[in-house]
Amino acid sequence: MVAVIAPWKDTLTSGEHSLIFYSLVIAGLALLGYLLKTALSLSEVGTKYRPAVLASIGITGIAFVSYVVLVIKFDIGYDPKGSNWVPNSDALLSWSPRYMDWSVTVPLLMIELIAVSALTGALARRVRFLGVGGAFAMIFTGYLGGVVIDNGENLGALWLWGVISGLFMVGLYVLILFTVLKTLPGLEAEARGSYRNAMILLMVIWFAYPIAFGLQGFASGGGRTTAMQVVLSFADIVAKVGFAVLIHKVAKLRTAQDVNNGTDTHPEAVWMSGVKHSNSIQPSVQAPAVAAPAAQPRFRRNQK
Amino acid sequence: MVAVIAPWKDTLTSGEHSLIFYSLVIAGLALLGYLLKTALSLSEVGTKYRPAVLASIGITGIAFVSYVVLVIKFDIGYDPKGSNWVPNSDALLSWSPRYMDWSVTVPLLMIELIAVSALTGALARRVRFLGVGGAFAMIFTGYLGGVVIDNGENLGALWLWGVISGLFMVGLYVLILFTVLKTLPGLEAEARGSYRNAMILLMVIWFAYPIAFGLQGFASGGGRTTAMQVVLSFADIVAKVGFAVLIHKVAKLRTAQDVNNGTDTHPEAVWMSGVKHSNSIQPSVQAPAVAAPAAQPRFRRNQK
Amino acid sequence: MVAVIAPWKDTLTSGEHSLIFYSLVIAGLALLGYLLKTALSLSEVGTKYRPAVLASIGITGIAFVSYVVLVIKFDIGYDPKGSNWVPNSDALLSWSPRYMDWSVTVPLLMIELIAVSALTGALARRVRFLGVGGAFAMIFTGYLGGVVIDNGENLGALWLWGVISGLFMVGLYVLILFTVLKTLPGLEAEARGSYRNAMILLMVIWFAYPIAFGLQGFASGGGRTTAMQVVLSFADIVAKVGFAVLIHKVAKLRTAQDVNNGTDTHPEAVWMSGVKHSNSIQPSVQAPAVAAPAAQPRFRRNQK
Amino acid sequence: MVAVIAPWKDTLTSGEHSLIFYSLVIAGLALLGYLLKTALSLSEVGTKYRPAVLASIGITGIAFVSYVVLVIKFDIGYDPKGSNWVPNSDALLSWSPRYMDWSVTVPLLMIELIAVSALTGALARRVRFLGVGGAFAMIFTGYLGGVVIDNGENLGALWLWGVISGLFMVGLYVLILFTVLKTLPGLEAEARGSYRNAMILLMVIWFAYPIAFGLQGFASGGGRTTAMQVVLSFADIVAKVGFAVLIHKVAKLRTAQDVNNGTDTHPEAVWMSGVKHSNSIQPSVQAPAVAAPAAQPRFRRNQK
Amino acid sequence: MVAVIAPWKDTLTSGEHSLIFYSLVIAGLALLGYLLKTALSLSEVGTKYRPAVLASIGITGIAFVSYVVLVIKFDIGYDPKGSNWVPNSDALLSWSPRYMDWSVTVPLLMIELIAVSALTGALARRVRFLGVGGAFAMIFTGYLGGVVIDNGENLGALWLWGVISGLFMVGLYVLILFTVLKTLPGLEAEARGSYRNAMILLMVIWFAYPIAFGLQGFASGGGRTTAMQVVLSFADIVAKVGFAVLIHKVAKLRTAQDVNNGTDTHPEAVWMSGVKHSNSIQPSVQAPAVAAPAAQPRFRRNQK
Repeated sequence: MVAVIAPWKDTLTSGEHSLIFYSLVIAGLALLGYLLKTALSLSEVGTKYRPAVLASIGITGIAFVSYVVLVIKFDIGYDPKGSNWVPNSDALLSWSPRYMDWSVTVPLLMIELIAVSALTGALARRVRFLGVGGAFAMIFTGYLGGVVIDNGENLGALWLWGVISGLFMVGLYVLILFTVLKTLPGLEAEARGSYRNAMILLMVIWFAYPIAFGLQGFASGGGRTTAMQVVLSFADIVAKVGFAVLIHKVAKLRTAQDVNNGTDTHPEAVWMSGVKHSNSIQPSVQAPAVAAPAAQPRFRRNQK
Repeated sequence: MVAVIAPWKDTLTSGEHSLIFYSLVIAGLALLGYLLKTALSLSEVGTKYRPAVLASIGITGIAFVSYVVLVIKFDIGYDPKGSNWVPNSDALLSWSPRYMDWSVTVPLLMIELIAVSALTGALARRVRFLGVGGAFAMIFTGYLGGVVIDNGENLGALWLWGVISGLFMVGLYVLILFTVLKTLPGLEAEARGSYRNAMILLMVIWFAYPIAFGLQGFASGGGRTTAMQVVLSFADIVAKVGFAVLIHKVAKLRTAQDVNNGTDTHPEAVWMSGVKHSNSIQPSVQAPAVAAPAAQPRFRRNQK
Repeated sequence: MVAVIAPWKDTLTSGEHSLIFYSLVIAGLALLGYLLKTALSLSEVGTKYRPAVLASIGITGIAFVSYVVLVIKFDIGYDPKGSNWVPNSDALLSWSPRYMDWSVTVPLLMIELIAVSALTGALARRVRFLGVGGAFAMIFTGYLGGVVIDNGENLGALWLWGVISGLFMVGLYVLILFTVLKTLPGLEAEARGSYRNAMILLMVIWFAYPIAFGLQGFASGGGRTTAMQVVLSFADIVAKVGFAVLIHKVAKLRTAQDVNNGTDTHPEAVWMSGVKHSNSIQPSVQAPAVAAPAAQPRFRRNQK
Repeated sequence: MVAVIAPWKDTLTSGEHSLIFYSLVIAGLALLGYLLKTALSLSEVGTKYRPAVLASIGITGIAFVSYVVLVIKFDIGYDPKGSNWVPNSDALLSWSPRYMDWSVTVPLLMIELIAVSALTGALARRVRFLGVGGAFAMIFTGYLGGVVIDNGENLGALWLWGVISGLFMVGLYVLILFTVLKTLPGLEAEARGSYRNAMILLMVIWFAYPIAFGLQGFASGGGRTTAMQVVLSFADIVAKVGFAVLIHKVAKLRTAQDVNNGTDTHPEAVWMSGVKHSNSIQPSVQAPAVAAPAAQPRFRRNQK
Repeated sequence: MVAVIAPWKDTLTSGEHSLIFYSLVIAGLALLGYLLKTALSLSEVGTKYRPAVLASIGITGIAFVSYVVLVIKFDIGYDPKGSNWVPNSDALLSWSPRYMDWSVTVPLLMIELIAVSALTGALARRVRFLGVGGAFAMIFTGYLGGVVIDNGENLGALWLWGVISGLFMVGLYVLILFTVLKTLPGLEAEARGSYRNAMILLMVIWFAYPIAFGLQGFASGGGRTTAMQVVLSFADIVAKVGFAVLIHKVAKLRTAQDVNNGTDTHPEAVWMSGVKHSNSIQPSVQAPAVAAPAAQPRFRRNQK
């Protein structure tokens, strides 16, 4: 077996330690900020597109919890020694929770993506099923090579499971492209632009993950670990918060379109960047019952 | 007394340790994700079926708390020793909270199941009472054999209480089948399919629990413990999240059906996988009071 | 002074330890489950009866926090020694928080009870005042005898304060019976049944508390402590969750009655066990202002 | 310098320890209970008076956090030694967080008070500004004498800053009386009674604080510390929860009055102690747009 | 390299320790109070201006978490030694989380500011993009000089990165002034006053940050560190809570204006300081569908 060094075993300089701390914490805080924002603005989006927003709430909520663990374990997982920080047995958990987070959030990302796309009914369900399954398989196989087998220090296993994971990644790209091509023609101009940007953003930023994975096999030292942690934190912000911002925009634009078409009602006007996209409109009222209820009496006080 | 070895007493290899950690954490995160999703989408379902959604919020909330404890105790309950992890006195609590979680969540599962079924009134209350009681008895008797008596290391007690617990399980299957057979004929085609799938899923995945229980008596070693923890975590995801997804689908379909029949109103349109199932419709307005209230004056500013 | 042994000073066998752990945790989880359920279904009940639901949210929220403390202190308050668990100085806090919880939740229970009863106006306020004060006095005097004076190990103080506490308990029973007798005649049949069941449940389960208190003076040993902890956990589930379930049912039935009578409006239909009790109905609309506001213009896009 | 002994330096008997623990915990639980209640019943009060309720949410939320710290630090800040408890360096934080809590919550109390009073516009803003500033100054100067200077053990500093703090207190009483006298004439009878009771309650209970402050200079010993902690916990319950209950009552009564006058609409009927004070009434509907939106088509299924 | 002493390395007197504790805790509590207030009053502001409120929720939520960390690390990061407190290796984290908080909250502040300004559409997006990017760059470069490079103890790096950070600050001032000048003419008198006050407040208080940064290079000792911590805590309260209060006022005034103009509907009346600014008004109702739904039957009980 050709041995490599796992990223949670490198000694860090104090500057590296400060940079990793910084990138872990701001990723966590950015996720928290978006979680609060999106959970409190759920009603801005019509019920048709709400699964996308609910998925992004799940994604940012789960990832926030994961970063809380990463930060705490990074804090207690390295001991100061002169001007360096030396890892102890807790340091593993400043790394491996990333895989556990991704195992749940990347499948949710596929649900988020499909919920604002034009696929419907049985086709939507089939693509969603494949996307969720493929995303999980991509992460789990990466975890096998990167952490489980020989503590992630076996170059052969890294290669083997990295390649298998990569194949699932290729499958996901195909699925995403299929969804995108089915969706783009039916969207109005403004929504089409945001939708396209969201998909490009996702498919570009995802390259950061295999690159970071590769560094586990082909480099070592504190600088390598710092690069991995900083890149992954940045990629998580982009893929979870940045992507969700664009998807949320698509969902709002499509909600306004549905209201303007008369396809759906929405109790609040849809505004974006100070521009109104649709009026507030309430549902039609149920026809009155045959026998009207007794009138609620007008009164001033002392009535039971 | 024939002694067996309790699962929280086995030494684990680092690979086994990583796999258990992974399965505990992703079960916890999946429960958290569904908890957020379902709590924030409560209004999608009509008040008739809301007890089902409230039950699934209780189930995922409680199970999430339980997994937080399992994860923390698994983290501090095993000490690294060379390339192995040796359990200490905290390791018991990386196992026994499962029974405490189930003691509350399996009864809630029965409530969830009945709330989307066709049983109503006194019959619904009677079946619910039996289901809740039987579910609790099934778990509590398992806890007696698996943890309380001789620390779960007495094969005779495992057999005795395992069989008693199994009898309650048989009773629950009968109760579920009775409910299902009463319900299926009255459902529309699409709801019937999801309802049937939910019930099959539940009755299949529940087999995982007695199998894991049996491993306590008939196997030992870290591989056995790993299998038990991974299987139980997976089964909890399926029985709690997967089942709830299907039940939620039934509840939404039945809500739409009630709106379309004029049986109930619903302020939001019901959409599923991009397909609209019912319009938004608001309740009829109360007849005006005899003496109309004084009109709210139109104004611009500076009024108290 | 005749000395007795406080329940937090007994050594426990591992079976006793497992049973207490189990009863504390499932009481906490049951409280959490009901807290989530009731907080998320607040709107099911009309504003008239909402104080009852808000009280039960306070009760289960506070008791849940109390059980979190009980569980944590029970976990760290006993050290394993051979096959036994020996208490340390933290063990007191696996017991005394019960009194602190009750000091706030039993007064709230009186508020919950009165809010669905027929007492109104000044009479309701007077009974509520007496109920809240008497409930607090009942618990506080019990705490003096059971914990404060000589660490709860003085038999004379146990007798003295136990009797005083018991007198307040008798007063509360009188107050509850007065309220019940005033209320029952005015309720419709179904609400009357649930209301009566709730009151019987409460007045029966409350006997568990003085019995457990008495065991502090007249028994000792781990079995005694186990009995006390299990009984009190069970009684808390019944008096807090079971009672609230019945009170919530009364509140829903009375809400439906008010809607059917035209006494109040309710935006959602009231359903219970699959049976509809009242339609959804919205409030009447304010008469239009003298000068109608300028119409919100219909448009497609690009407007500020 | 004449030295006194700070309250967090006294040794406590076990009875004193149990009484302080009790008073700290029940104050925290009472605050939690009211926080839950008031946050979940925000919609019961009209938007005009909502700043009062939002202020009381801030007050109870902040004070609850403060009591969590007080309880934790009291738990770990005293070590058992025979039948006594001896303070360690954590004991300071079982006392000083009170000042930090008050520095934010007493200014919020002034906002709460003014929001249900009759002052409006520029006058309201000016009184609010003075009230917030004076309240902060009153607490901060007390903190300087009671904790910062010579660890609160300098009698001269206690006198000096106690007197300055007292002068701000006198200013606040003047401000409150001014507000009350401006408000009382305009209120209806029932609201006037509750408003007056709230103000009397506040101005009486506030005397507890300077009395407790004085005990720091003129007494010592565990009994003194116990008296201070118990009195302050009780005063916090009264000034935060009791006062808020009365202010909430005023806000509800004034809301009902505004609905009955036609000054405002309110979607829910206002009920208090089983008596209805105003009907539910919804806002008038916007005049229809020139071009009506296309009708939402009636349908059964399979539509996008 | 000219060395300076980092602020987290100074020994503190007990008075300095008490003052820093006080300022950290009250900043945290003020942020918590405003977080609760603003999250629970979100609906007071129209959907057009809601991004401003959502941003302030993110800002106060993130800053609250950051202050929790600062307080905990300040508590455990200094050990008592005689009448002084000596920092240990945890003390760094009673300082550096400020930069992590600012890295996310200052960009959010730019979003908050722009959301109540008059910029719309593409111009709003461009200014927002520059504001977010510039704000992040300002903080990150400050972190490089103040913490990362040589532990913030290299005077040259402090100068270099301080100047670069200052240049970004100048850019932000230009951007803010541009936005303000575009916005002021279009606002009504009352909103214009609050808007102008908010912007002056922000641009004045921001000077506190570079002044505190400068103290790292040109002063040392516990008094210096105390001044830095107190000033930054105060500045955070003003820039996060005080600024948000004014922005919220602008958003409410503009919401009322939109309702009065007929530009938007709002289900609640807008009241400020006891003065009504606009009536409650609901959206127009969707035209009835071609085929009216079957009427919801009037009934009493026992219907499914």
